[in-house]
Amino acid sequence: MTAIHVALLGYGTVGKGVYRTIEKHQERLKTILGKEVKIVAILVKELEKHQWVNNEVLFTDNYTDIINLPKLDVVIDAIVGVEPGFSYLRQAINRGCHVITANKEMFAHHGTELLSLAKEKNVSLGFEATVAGGIPIIQTLKKLLNANKVDKVEGILNGTSNFILTKMREENLSFEDALKLAQEYGYAEADPANDIEGVDAFYKAVILSEVIFGEQPEWEQTITQGIGTLTLQQIKLFESLGLRFKHVASLQKSNTEIQCTVRPVLVTNSHPLYQVEEVQNAINIEADIVGNISLQGPGAGMFPTASAIVEDLIHIGDKQLASSPEDSLFFEKETKENIWALHGEIDNLLLSDDIRISKEIHPQVVLVETTVERIINLKTSHEICCFEVLGNIEEDKVLHGELIKEENINHSY
Amino acid sequence: MTAIHVALLGYGTVGKGVYRTIEKHQERLKTILGKEVKIVAILVKELEKHQWVNNEVLFTDNYTDIINLPKLDVVIDAIVGVEPGFSYLRQAINRGCHVITANKEMFAHHGTELLSLAKEKNVSLGFEATVAGGIPIIQTLKKLLNANKVDKVEGILNGTSNFILTKMREENLSFEDALKLAQEYGYAEADPANDIEGVDAFYKAVILSEVIFGEQPEWEQTITQGIGTLTLQQIKLFESLGLRFKHVASLQKSNTEIQCTVRPVLVTNSHPLYQVEEVQNAINIEADIVGNISLQGPGAGMFPTASAIVEDLIHIGDKQLASSPEDSLFFEKETKENIWALHGEIDNLLLSDDIRISKEIHPQVVLVETTVERIINLKTSHEICCFEVLGNIEEDKVLHGELIKEENINHSY
Repeated sequence: MTAIHVALLGYGTVGKGVYRTIEKHQERLKTILGKEVKIVAILVKELEKHQWVNNEVLFTDNYTDIINLPKLDVVIDAIVGVEPGFSYLRQAINRGCHVITANKEMFAHHGTELLSLAKEKNVSLGFEATVAGGIPIIQTLKKLLNANKVDKVEGILNGTSNFILTKMREENLSFEDALKLAQEYGYAEADPANDIEGVDAFYKAVILSEVIFGEQPEWEQTITQGIGTLTLQQIKLFESLGLRFKHVASLQKSNTEIQCTVRPVLVTNSHPLYQVEEVQNAINIEADIVGNISLQGPGAGMFPTASAIVEDLIHIGDKQLASSPEDSLFFEKETKENIWALHGEIDNLLLSDDIRISKEIHPQVVLVETTVERIINLKTSHEICCFEVLGNIEEDKVLHGELIKEENINHSY
Repeated sequence: MTAIHVALLGYGTVGKGVYRTIEKHQERLKTILGKEVKIVAILVKELEKHQWVNNEVLFTDNYTDIINLPKLDVVIDAIVGVEPGFSYLRQAINRGCHVITANKEMFAHHGTELLSLAKEKNVSLGFEATVAGGIPIIQTLKKLLNANKVDKVEGILNGTSNFILTKMREENLSFEDALKLAQEYGYAEADPANDIEGVDAFYKAVILSEVIFGEQPEWEQTITQGIGTLTLQQIKLFESLGLRFKHVASLQKSNTEIQCTVRPVLVTNSHPLYQVEEVQNAINIEADIVGNISLQGPGAGMFPTASAIVEDLIHIGDKQLASSPEDSLFFEKETKENIWALHGEIDNLLLSDDIRISKEIHPQVVLVETTVERIINLKTSHEICCFEVLGNIEEDKVLHGELIKEENINHSY
């Protein structure tokens, strides 16, 4: 069996995510692609900062070593900044390698050039990971664009600024304190300017513009407004009026000009972006025939970004969807506690051993926790209705209560 | 230039939507497909119920007339019910036609059989329109499944039952009155049982199960609970506790068994399904590498469904995405009124002619309406901050105020 030889540029969060994902899911990849995916080289900036023990992988700080490898099929770009990423990928394409990039700044600047070079050299160029991490926005847009003209796109494309706005509002933090919190969580860089000034979101909007309109907005015409000037007082005032601040990137074509803005806007609770909180990303697409479509998901992070890269890798493999994944490819399922609300005569409530009362939230409503997946099947009193609860119950609402024995259950349901 | 010859089965809401979409967007289709799309025949149940004036199209109640047409490339199924849809499509595939269906009941029953027949005959079978209308859920799942194992899917897959639950809660209606309202709006059939009992959502879940797991859940094992037993009192009680009822279809694979349920559940306001209201559909996908992805959009209706069908049609055309749509394909843009919130010293507020004050909602906040797209560019007092408002401001909040002249604007911003 031949293998697909992959070089990985960069071994930070995204690079590690790709490495671990490919290693962990070797079997699945082999089944889908019919070939083993072999990471043959990893490029790092400073060798001494990394410990490396896998002798089968070339671990180097010299790109020349990589580009001259005798066997090299795919180069994955997981570094940041326009250079050296652009030069590296150009070399790789010129050599006839397929390339996949997660580098939005580089791709916003040189995507068009790389795409046309890739076309000329007849190799693939995947860039799903450059915009909104794990949300398959590029593919969805391409699909919609088959039949629709997309009129407008609005999105929360930067998780860090959304996290800051969420924490300011929820925890009454100043901008500075919320930023500090984002840095403690590892969401914001030491220099967070690109995130909070909207530059990162702008790069992503530029890439979306290329996909949707086939061209970029005028960079100089774009209005990019950061969130650093919003005060806690403003955020709380508008919250009291039912409005939330979101840092929204927007793209729209009117006549021949593409308008792009990145700025704080207010959203009402009927708008799909209203409940997009913390580091989540989301995108609304207005298309002429289908109407409005929204997508929401993890916009960044080790594994969501790795997922987008591996999807591109498989796309390069040019295989059809494995619509019947084998059971052997399935992982073990974790047993998860579910929350259910029971409504009725609480006095009569009698539960089995595997159901734990967590909190009475109303004289007629009790929340229970259980690993039983189908409480609906349980025999309960006919006066009790059971409904599963989806979403997070705030921590302080969940109190662990005592167990009640099954023998006392009223079986008349 | 050759043409793609299409027969349309059914001329109800979906059929009409497909016909009008193809007619209206002829130029776009020609550009993308390189061929004209020609609707050559339409099948209806009762000829006398329709008026038809286009003599170039065979309008018939006899399928034999259609299947024996000398030129026929694609058959689009926009009728309901297992039969005669299944037999018609089988005949079409056997003749070598590509087929596209929006018929979920038929496809839930016979999708596997039709897919394998289509493979054997080397024709395409598109079924994007069978689940969640305009939301490109089938393609998104296929894309995610390239790299991910999907663990679980939860969705609001029936617009009618979601509409009823929304109206009961928002307008304090009994189930019966909300159902009546849905029928008045044309959302619910005269016999609404399939929608409110969860049967329609179950069919869609079966189709999703085929895509995700390559097999169907056991029909007999599925728990389908309707919304007809929910009382207004229950809905209001849980609303007061911060929870909303949603009619959710859920699919999950544990070990080798696929569990499928359709039932009312409670969702918290942090859950993506919480703000999915009225006739909207939405789907959450839990995938093992990428995490959670949500999609939301119009689940039914004339044009969203037509969009999904036309997307499938173009997919059959086997063309790459037209990534640079020509300007000539773009429609005229409507001029839209935007709402902005101005925050600051309202007394100093001085606006130009094209901005209309719509309501003061707080001593320091005024809403304005304008067709100006970038109020941000306007010179305003430095004490005034301007934020665009996305989402619906409830009708009663928007009052049309008087105009204030630009000459008085403070240009110090």
